[in-house]
Amino acid sequence: MNYRAPLREMRFVLHELFDVTQHCQFLGTGLDRDTLDDVLEEAARFAGEVVAPLNRDSDEQGCSLQDGQVRTPDGFREAYRQYVDNGWAGMTGPQAYGGQALPQMVAACFHEMLMAASLSFRIYSGLTEGAVLALHRHGSEALKHTWLGKLVSGEWTGTMCLTEPQAGTDLALLRTRAEPRADGSYSIIGSKIFISGGDQDLTDNIVHLVLARLPDAPAGVKGISLFLVPKVLPDTGLGNALGCGALEHKMGIKGASTCVMNFDGAQGWLVGEANQGLACMFTMMNDARFQVGLQGLGIAEAAFQGGLAYARERLQSRSLSGAVAPEKAADPIIVHPDVRRMLLTQKTLTEGCRMLATYTARQLDLEQGAPHPHERHQAGRRAALLIPVVKAFFTDVGQEVASLGVQIHGGHGYIREWGMEQLMRDSRITQLYEGTNGIQALDLVRRKLIGDGGAELNGLIDELALHADAAGAQASLQAMGAAVSQRLDEWRVLGERVIERCQHDPEEIGAVSVDFLAYSGYVLLAAFWLQAARHADTALTQGSDEAAFYQAKLQAAEFYWRRILPRATAHREALLGGAGCLMTIPESDFAF
Amino acid sequence: MNYRAPLREMRFVLHELFDVTQHCQFLGTGLDRDTLDDVLEEAARFAGEVVAPLNRDSDEQGCSLQDGQVRTPDGFREAYRQYVDNGWAGMTGPQAYGGQALPQMVAACFHEMLMAASLSFRIYSGLTEGAVLALHRHGSEALKHTWLGKLVSGEWTGTMCLTEPQAGTDLALLRTRAEPRADGSYSIIGSKIFISGGDQDLTDNIVHLVLARLPDAPAGVKGISLFLVPKVLPDTGLGNALGCGALEHKMGIKGASTCVMNFDGAQGWLVGEANQGLACMFTMMNDARFQVGLQGLGIAEAAFQGGLAYARERLQSRSLSGAVAPEKAADPIIVHPDVRRMLLTQKTLTEGCRMLATYTARQLDLEQGAPHPHERHQAGRRAALLIPVVKAFFTDVGQEVASLGVQIHGGHGYIREWGMEQLMRDSRITQLYEGTNGIQALDLVRRKLIGDGGAELNGLIDELALHADAAGAQASLQAMGAAVSQRLDEWRVLGERVIERCQHDPEEIGAVSVDFLAYSGYVLLAAFWLQAARHADTALTQGSDEAAFYQAKLQAAEFYWRRILPRATAHREALLGGAGCLMTIPESDFAF
Repeated sequence: MNYRAPLREMRFVLHELFDVTQHCQFLGTGLDRDTLDDVLEEAARFAGEVVAPLNRDSDEQGCSLQDGQVRTPDGFREAYRQYVDNGWAGMTGPQAYGGQALPQMVAACFHEMLMAASLSFRIYSGLTEGAVLALHRHGSEALKHTWLGKLVSGEWTGTMCLTEPQAGTDLALLRTRAEPRADGSYSIIGSKIFISGGDQDLTDNIVHLVLARLPDAPAGVKGISLFLVPKVLPDTGLGNALGCGALEHKMGIKGASTCVMNFDGAQGWLVGEANQGLACMFTMMNDARFQVGLQGLGIAEAAFQGGLAYARERLQSRSLSGAVAPEKAADPIIVHPDVRRMLLTQKTLTEGCRMLATYTARQLDLEQGAPHPHERHQAGRRAALLIPVVKAFFTDVGQEVASLGVQIHGGHGYIREWGMEQLMRDSRITQLYEGTNGIQALDLVRRKLIGDGGAELNGLIDELALHADAAGAQASLQAMGAAVSQRLDEWRVLGERVIERCQHDPEEIGAVSVDFLAYSGYVLLAAFWLQAARHADTALTQGSDEAAFYQAKLQAAEFYWRRILPRATAHREALLGGAGCLMTIPESDFAF
Repeated sequence: MNYRAPLREMRFVLHELFDVTQHCQFLGTGLDRDTLDDVLEEAARFAGEVVAPLNRDSDEQGCSLQDGQVRTPDGFREAYRQYVDNGWAGMTGPQAYGGQALPQMVAACFHEMLMAASLSFRIYSGLTEGAVLALHRHGSEALKHTWLGKLVSGEWTGTMCLTEPQAGTDLALLRTRAEPRADGSYSIIGSKIFISGGDQDLTDNIVHLVLARLPDAPAGVKGISLFLVPKVLPDTGLGNALGCGALEHKMGIKGASTCVMNFDGAQGWLVGEANQGLACMFTMMNDARFQVGLQGLGIAEAAFQGGLAYARERLQSRSLSGAVAPEKAADPIIVHPDVRRMLLTQKTLTEGCRMLATYTARQLDLEQGAPHPHERHQAGRRAALLIPVVKAFFTDVGQEVASLGVQIHGGHGYIREWGMEQLMRDSRITQLYEGTNGIQALDLVRRKLIGDGGAELNGLIDELALHADAAGAQASLQAMGAAVSQRLDEWRVLGERVIERCQHDPEEIGAVSVDFLAYSGYVLLAAFWLQAARHADTALTQGSDEAAFYQAKLQAAEFYWRRILPRATAHREALLGGAGCLMTIPESDFAF
């Protein structure tokens, strides 16, 4: 399938909704609107013309392991070379190491495009950016000097090596060991699984960030340290004692190598303090979770484009109100209300997530670069609240929207050549990795909601309520504004109720979490759709010459409010059903 | 993965909920309880020990096309031979042609087992039963004499050849032609796609039921006739002028051959009257839709078993209330409330669908075999109302429950070896074939609801409401009984409102249909869960020695009511959002 980056939509969100130019000024990056738009257009070309054409074949071909060396699908090497040569790798990297330090608000658009074009291709570079972050923040000057430059440029890639067969969600169970060497470095011994890009043939070296235990480390998560373990040793140019033992056989993302990695006394260097590995890794994990959210968004956009193109072309049956295209054998299926329901579900979820992604990226930028510590701190709290929602809600959306892409295609959606089923298979991993969506929901409720007694959630609701009130004051948006305001009030009360319940019974945390996250996601999107409607309404009142664009925004907002937002009600009712009906049934009695 | 047929559950539904022995007596089939239970035990052994072990490898190996001949995966031939030799093929076939004419209520249990064990394997035999039905009802005596015996025994299989590249949902666009021959037979010329079991190496002959147009046929669906077109001609033993042109490359059901079939002047015989092909085919289609519903159910059961086994074994993190298995490295994940939420969602949807499937099978049996024409007519109407719900709701459930199976496994769910992702890929077709789920919803609202002014729906609600009142009279079920009664009233009012709206605007039919079907499915399951709870409550009161089994039924019913039934609210709210927000946006403005 073809992918065309939704540049008009992105400009709407960046410029009209969130004023990215002012944002850049505030951060002290002197980027003007024209430069930004040029960057996005070039990015769209790279994603659409260089990367997207590789996606379908990479799924058929997959990766292979030959003599211990992973081979990526045809075309990935050349595309990756262009990615590095054109400077895309360094987009967000620190300037001191050759990066361009562009705001996340802009980078998120490019990264969404890459995810949409080929999730498998993007995976190789995506974790490198997280590795740069972790190393930049926690690594010694010597480590930074040796490794950061080529990671920022993309000449080398990075990986995250956390999971072991017995230790997935529960990192306390990690067994990989690190034994001190005389020269201050360490020997890493152990096996890791599910390592994305653990080996590949795109770059000459790969920098593994590995969690392992020092000999004297305390048990549990407080005894985990982070090590930098390269594929090739920098001094000698010789291979390190590590390698890919096997490739996993997966449902999708077949163009991305997912490796079993064996560390057989490989030389590594400690990153950050001993036994502080989890905290160091979480720097990387937060970035990775935001990126996984963008994967959901990118795949949703690709599936929407596929569904829309097919719905406009495919002729089948007549409109319920009589023939729309009587000159043809049948009407295009986009005339049928149920096909429109599916398309508008795709559209409003996708565009809604894009607004929330951009809002979250803005917080990440402010956390890094706002002038005052108070602003940085505040933005960091806001981002921390939103990131589990972005990761879990967006990837659930990605899976749903991809599945709708299949459904719109009918039987053809099930056939590989059309590309829709690949999007479903590829996106399914995003609900699992970097912490399952259930784990995101626990993080949201336990750490982000209960952790501060609901203060940050209430701050967010206050901000959104101000926007909702302003929108509701515009005559044509009165009803929608009132509905959203009511939901925001309901969210606040629900948050309080959840906190109270969880104080009485810790099991309530896990009993309400997934429904609370989904509820939050739907209400957040409603709040942003209302903001979009307000901007559209204003543009129309001012006589914009893009009336159709803004009219469609109003119509989409109305669809979201009337047909999607009701899902929040179900999640609210379900979570109020409580933990009792989950916990009373004995483990032995789930089946007979 | 292992599959073990849920025999205790099936006995609960068959004997305790629906009294299958009395049902058999009513139908005049002299089957006692012991015989029935023996049949189910044998069936469980065949499904679990012969078929299930083939499923995983068949997905890896797939089918191949060699010199125009399809080869099925290793082991399918031997298993199919056992299927025929042991008499499973003839379970529902007419006795006059060697079948056992067992009630659908019993057969549905066996078919569910087969679907759960291997959907791909089941597809070859599943359509044969539909072909037998269509031929038995519409074929001439000569055709029946030649073909029915070996179809009933399973020595030969049957297919349905409807879809063409330009004609899927819209059969009016069919182009395949049938030209009369001098001997009264016809030459069939055309190409069909997506033909399940179009070719295979399990049997010596294949009987294709093909829709095609006679030379003088009117345009549209009123000019379609049904033909029997065998792979091998009976008189000569020579191959007919037809063949598999290609195998489709699919997301799943890779062990089932899905063929492009070319008919190059193949000899065929008219089944039923000229130009009445669609009506004849619908005999087969109704059976096929019920069977596809069972596919959703079977896959859901398999995914529940997989999820439950993993949740009991996998050790990861500690219970939120403190260690449950302190002697182990971590607690089994079944202690976590969110894992329990996923498992109970799997369990209650699966068991709920099984109750509704059995109720529907009962109607199908009564439609065929009730003593009085009035009873047969009434049961036929009830079955017709329910079949689109069974097809669409069960297959949506199958996909959701399979996806939960993946989610419970975390990253391992994405790896092929665990079998969970295969269930997701296999089940995804069930939402598409034999009429997409959107088409089922249109059928429900247009033909089954509006078609009789809501009479049959109200009759069903009346019946369920009597049960709900009786359950609510049991002290411990008062609250659940009241909640279900209220939903049944709400359903009745909603049905009336939908009928009224659709009279004013035909677009409303397609705008409300999918949400109305989902709403109906959730309320139906609630009504049956209440019935199950009532039986369980009674058994406990009477001091059953299976207290744990019945207690679990009560707990599961409570979970369904509190945590799943709220979804009905969202579907109701969404459908009341109406057609306006779907239809106003111009086709050109869905994206910019």
